[in-house]
Amino acid sequence: MTRIAYVNGKYVHHKLASVHIEDRGYQFGDGVYEVVLILNGKLIDLDGHIRRLERSLNEIEIQLSFNLKIFEPIINRLMKMNFLKNGIVYIQVTRGVASRDHKYPKSVNASIVMTIKHINISQKLQKNGQKAITVEDQRWKRRDIKTIQLLPNCIAKEKANKEGAYEAIMIMGDGTVSEGSSSNVWLVKKNQLITREANFNILNGITRKAILKIAKVKNLNIEERKFDIKEMLDSDEVFITSATSIVTGITEIDGKKINNGKIGSISKELRDYYFSHSM
Amino acid sequence: MTRIAYVNGKYVHHKLASVHIEDRGYQFGDGVYEVVLILNGKLIDLDGHIRRLERSLNEIEIQLSFNLKIFEPIINRLMKMNFLKNGIVYIQVTRGVASRDHKYPKSVNASIVMTIKHINISQKLQKNGQKAITVEDQRWKRRDIKTIQLLPNCIAKEKANKEGAYEAIMIMGDGTVSEGSSSNVWLVKKNQLITREANFNILNGITRKAILKIAKVKNLNIEERKFDIKEMLDSDEVFITSATSIVTGITEIDGKKINNGKIGSISKELRDYYFSHSM
Repeated sequence: MTRIAYVNGKYVHHKLASVHIEDRGYQFGDGVYEVVLILNGKLIDLDGHIRRLERSLNEIEIQLSFNLKIFEPIINRLMKMNFLKNGIVYIQVTRGVASRDHKYPKSVNASIVMTIKHINISQKLQKNGQKAITVEDQRWKRRDIKTIQLLPNCIAKEKANKEGAYEAIMIMGDGTVSEGSSSNVWLVKKNQLITREANFNILNGITRKAILKIAKVKNLNIEERKFDIKEMLDSDEVFITSATSIVTGITEIDGKKINNGKIGSISKELRDYYFSHSM
Repeated sequence: MTRIAYVNGKYVHHKLASVHIEDRGYQFGDGVYEVVLILNGKLIDLDGHIRRLERSLNEIEIQLSFNLKIFEPIINRLMKMNFLKNGIVYIQVTRGVASRDHKYPKSVNASIVMTIKHINISQKLQKNGQKAITVEDQRWKRRDIKTIQLLPNCIAKEKANKEGAYEAIMIMGDGTVSEGSSSNVWLVKKNQLITREANFNILNGITRKAILKIAKVKNLNIEERKFDIKEMLDSDEVFITSATSIVTGITEIDGKKINNGKIGSISKELRDYYFSHSM
């Protein structure tokens, strides 16, 4: 769908958009990324995404020679060039091109790639709840950094896909839920919202933060803490959040129905509020 | 140093060698690799590397439409085109190019990239032992698959580099040594060789296997089992193995001298035997 992509300062035809084979993103997964939602031509929570990208870059010591504020006009130009008003922009920053060696190269320029894709978000997953499965969390220890080390996430998502499910919910060695393969996981129990506290074990989702704010506005009780599979399956509602899933009700996990297979009222309320205040 | 690289069926100038920005290797680290040593124009243990590559591909369900035996003539041609007799060939296979989505794309062609680089192996690290540091093993759970999910390895190696050390030895949550950031770790205690058993926790090195064979020929006792930092520091000798380190003596770990800072006799013997029987 994308016609024009952005690669290291140039706007190029997507088909021809390429990076060097010795880009460290390609050889080491040495890079970070963000996915930003676009609704009616508006970039949702761009500042939050840029701040998180900056944090990710700092955590793995990728230095940029410019301010990340330059990304907004680039994205706006990409939206115009691609005639796009609803969808996502994908931003990836890697350490750059260098002769293969595990240690960080000196004085190398980071590689910046952006693509844009049409998705009709508002009609997606709205009416029906989705199925999920649980899988072992096989990832590395720094899930708080949004790196492109995503193979375990891909393996998990593919397993869900093969079993006809929308998301794979990851279970840590101690039996607690960390997060989904590309989302945060939430429970509703007696009008209380429960989601795992943000530390090294999960990515602190931008949508997760937005939902926490909305929950406060709506005077819902919030508990940020661990929970296990049993507590999840016994919940009144389960939903996941991400830039593209926004709030998506999960109504079946490992074949067991949640809330009799229906999306719960709080999940709906949060999603509706998110849309009405983002657009 | 490399003049010509191999990219998806073509021999191209290294400077111009590129892959599409939506190659899953670049966006997800969704690929595997091998590094093969070249000594005097001879590919060392190519069969072992090809078999392991095949296993890695199977483990993450990347299917190829051709037999991996075609790699040998490609590598030979690359060696000729680059006038190279000593060094390494780097082989990378990723799932291929597809619109970004965690789940595996259907009917996509895997991407194959090969580069070749001159290294004068035989003179390297031979006389003096190397320093190492210990670091937390932050990697994902399937270290037996040789994937390009290497950021934690890079972080570890860079830490070693900053502290003036050659290798970072990774320590698991239970206090035992898994392996080096790009090598297997061995202890010598009273003429006994100790190295961790090969399961999900470590990569089963091709050089590791070669050294196990040599140890048998030489009637050395071998124990494949876990060991902790204390046992490592109290050893008579410590060495690491990999395709490029071959057998490299480690004579200082976290500032503590091993064998009074000298390479031990068994480490030397194994390295000498490896060279005399590989060349």
